[in-house]
Amino acid sequence: MDNFQFNVGTNILFGKGQLEKLPAVLEPFGKKVLLTYGGGSIKRMGLYDRVKALLADFEVFELGGIDPNPRVESVEAGAKICREQQIDVILAVGGGSTIDCSKAIAAATFYDGDAWEMIKKVNNPMIGRAAITKAVPLCTVLTLAATGSEMNSGSVISNLQTKEKVGFSSPLLLPKCSILDPEYTFTVPANQTAAGAVDIMSHILEVYFNPSPAYVADKISEGLLKTVIEYAPVAMKEPENYEARANLMWAGTLALNGLCAAGRAGQAWTIHPIEHELSAYYDITHGVGLALLTPRWMRYVLDDQNVEQFVKYGVNVWGIDASLDKFEIAKKAIDATEQFWKGLGIPMTLSELGIGEENFAAMAANAVQSGWLQYAYKPLSQEDVVAILKMCL
Amino acid sequence: MDNFQFNVGTNILFGKGQLEKLPAVLEPFGKKVLLTYGGGSIKRMGLYDRVKALLADFEVFELGGIDPNPRVESVEAGAKICREQQIDVILAVGGGSTIDCSKAIAAATFYDGDAWEMIKKVNNPMIGRAAITKAVPLCTVLTLAATGSEMNSGSVISNLQTKEKVGFSSPLLLPKCSILDPEYTFTVPANQTAAGAVDIMSHILEVYFNPSPAYVADKISEGLLKTVIEYAPVAMKEPENYEARANLMWAGTLALNGLCAAGRAGQAWTIHPIEHELSAYYDITHGVGLALLTPRWMRYVLDDQNVEQFVKYGVNVWGIDASLDKFEIAKKAIDATEQFWKGLGIPMTLSELGIGEENFAAMAANAVQSGWLQYAYKPLSQEDVVAILKMCL
Repeated sequence: MDNFQFNVGTNILFGKGQLEKLPAVLEPFGKKVLLTYGGGSIKRMGLYDRVKALLADFEVFELGGIDPNPRVESVEAGAKICREQQIDVILAVGGGSTIDCSKAIAAATFYDGDAWEMIKKVNNPMIGRAAITKAVPLCTVLTLAATGSEMNSGSVISNLQTKEKVGFSSPLLLPKCSILDPEYTFTVPANQTAAGAVDIMSHILEVYFNPSPAYVADKISEGLLKTVIEYAPVAMKEPENYEARANLMWAGTLALNGLCAAGRAGQAWTIHPIEHELSAYYDITHGVGLALLTPRWMRYVLDDQNVEQFVKYGVNVWGIDASLDKFEIAKKAIDATEQFWKGLGIPMTLSELGIGEENFAAMAANAVQSGWLQYAYKPLSQEDVVAILKMCL
Repeated sequence: MDNFQFNVGTNILFGKGQLEKLPAVLEPFGKKVLLTYGGGSIKRMGLYDRVKALLADFEVFELGGIDPNPRVESVEAGAKICREQQIDVILAVGGGSTIDCSKAIAAATFYDGDAWEMIKKVNNPMIGRAAITKAVPLCTVLTLAATGSEMNSGSVISNLQTKEKVGFSSPLLLPKCSILDPEYTFTVPANQTAAGAVDIMSHILEVYFNPSPAYVADKISEGLLKTVIEYAPVAMKEPENYEARANLMWAGTLALNGLCAAGRAGQAWTIHPIEHELSAYYDITHGVGLALLTPRWMRYVLDDQNVEQFVKYGVNVWGIDASLDKFEIAKKAIDATEQFWKGLGIPMTLSELGIGEENFAAMAANAVQSGWLQYAYKPLSQEDVVAILKMCL
């Protein structure tokens, strides 16, 4: 087990009716609130009105219309409000995109320069987190089980002009409090529920395939994967099934708060950097991109060195007979992963999304240039990435 | 899944050499440190000298000799030092006893009255946590995988005069930082390693047997139980096996930081209140008392209503064939629990400890009078407790 730090003091208020605590949660930070949200879903389900009513005693400014794959333009707009109005606390109401955008706003407010420059600096392994020195406190009300952003310090922002989607993090961006009421995910449509489930599983798999032994992290990872496998189909069939929504939500939060990575140091993710190119070029749903890439990546990298990891995955997560040949177990596990996502209705080929191979070389070049893939579970070259993308056609 | 709050911002620094960060960890709180510890083990292994060297720039006061089942007298002594010397931060170096005692000291320092009165007040369901309004910040260096006190806000203090052992908690007592270096557990003797393993498993089982469905918590609980079952025997045979010590240590921390209970509200523990009577009367090792009681309690409460919980436990933790009759699975699971602890060398009868039934009635009366057993998984009367104790003879 490698050394690690686990310092995740987000106050999680989980369950029905927790929203009523919102005024008490925000009060210690001050009276000036920037309320951030995405499209109209929080208005349609009445959450927007309820939040506004609860904040009657606060001075509330708003930034709505935050897109999936949130844009740097929203970050700039939010930071401008925070600076001009001297905002005390940001309240993000929505899914990972709204929360990620709000984290970038929180940091950009105090950054002397434009937001994209800051994000690129923080993403640069040579400068890193030091580029963020101060941030507006952030609280969240989660409406989608997917990114885990509600209990971690990471964010991903897109720049459609430069066709870049860049991840960064700073301990200063960890939400102070996150309100997780599974009932606010009842209205999430089936396709987004499915994409969220893939995202959760991908966060776990990105670190589960790892050469560092970490038994506790393995067991937690396997348990969370089983949770998603158990409950994602239920939530899609019965959108108001509280147990299903609650378990998906909590699994999504724990999948990326550090528990699954604890004891596994020094390895970069593989699938996310490649998917970020797909999203940056085609603005597709993040979870769909991950689902497309993951089983193909697994087939591409499976070898004598790593087959035991796949065996562990197959036996402990998918319940595949441990007495079979190890490569047979590995292949069955990969097939099970692909079939599970197909069963959730995820389009599992790029062709279904109308995407051809015209940008594969450029996307692969960008993915490799990001610098992370050389530190991945199995380091990948540009040719490797193109080969994996071709398997997705 | 029931509503819950999870707010556990202890900064965990896990792994080899993390102790070197101690000055940086303590610095923000101030220069006056109360160093607390137990017997001579931290001196024998050189940890005491290393801590003192690292604290060369601090003004260090000391309270050593804290006993297992820590006494209220140590709490009073520590609180006196904190008040007189205006201590800025308490540094507990040791196992759960030292940390628990330090939590009580942290609170008693600011309590207007004697420490035992405070503890009894906080333990009283009608007054509770409100009795603690302020506490000295606490950091810890853990030397025993067992109680989980390094990442939670609870404490248990004994009063040998009144033959009471009382648990209490307050969010103000959560350690600010805990340094977890598994190498500091290399010198833990086999019998204490075994008792620690039982303690960890018991913390999980106290909430695993629960009528509230909580799938994520189940999976995490099962994974942590499997971790202890995998690594406790290894750590006993090879005391310097880092992976074994590291996984036990991290499992012990996660077993009682709220993760295993998340989503399971409103149920009190059963075994700990009964064991606290054993420890209070006979000052036996806490883990030994838990091991004695748990399988007997399981056999005593197993019935048609709860057999499915035992089936889940047997199949998912002990790998018992799911196709067997449900009561057969339950009984095999209970036997496996008992045999596992026996295999670790734990004395599994009270007779082996020289304890007879002379105080059973009084202990049972106290356990029931504590008020918790009526809210337990299966509520227990004084007669029930006596019957369970008799099964332990």
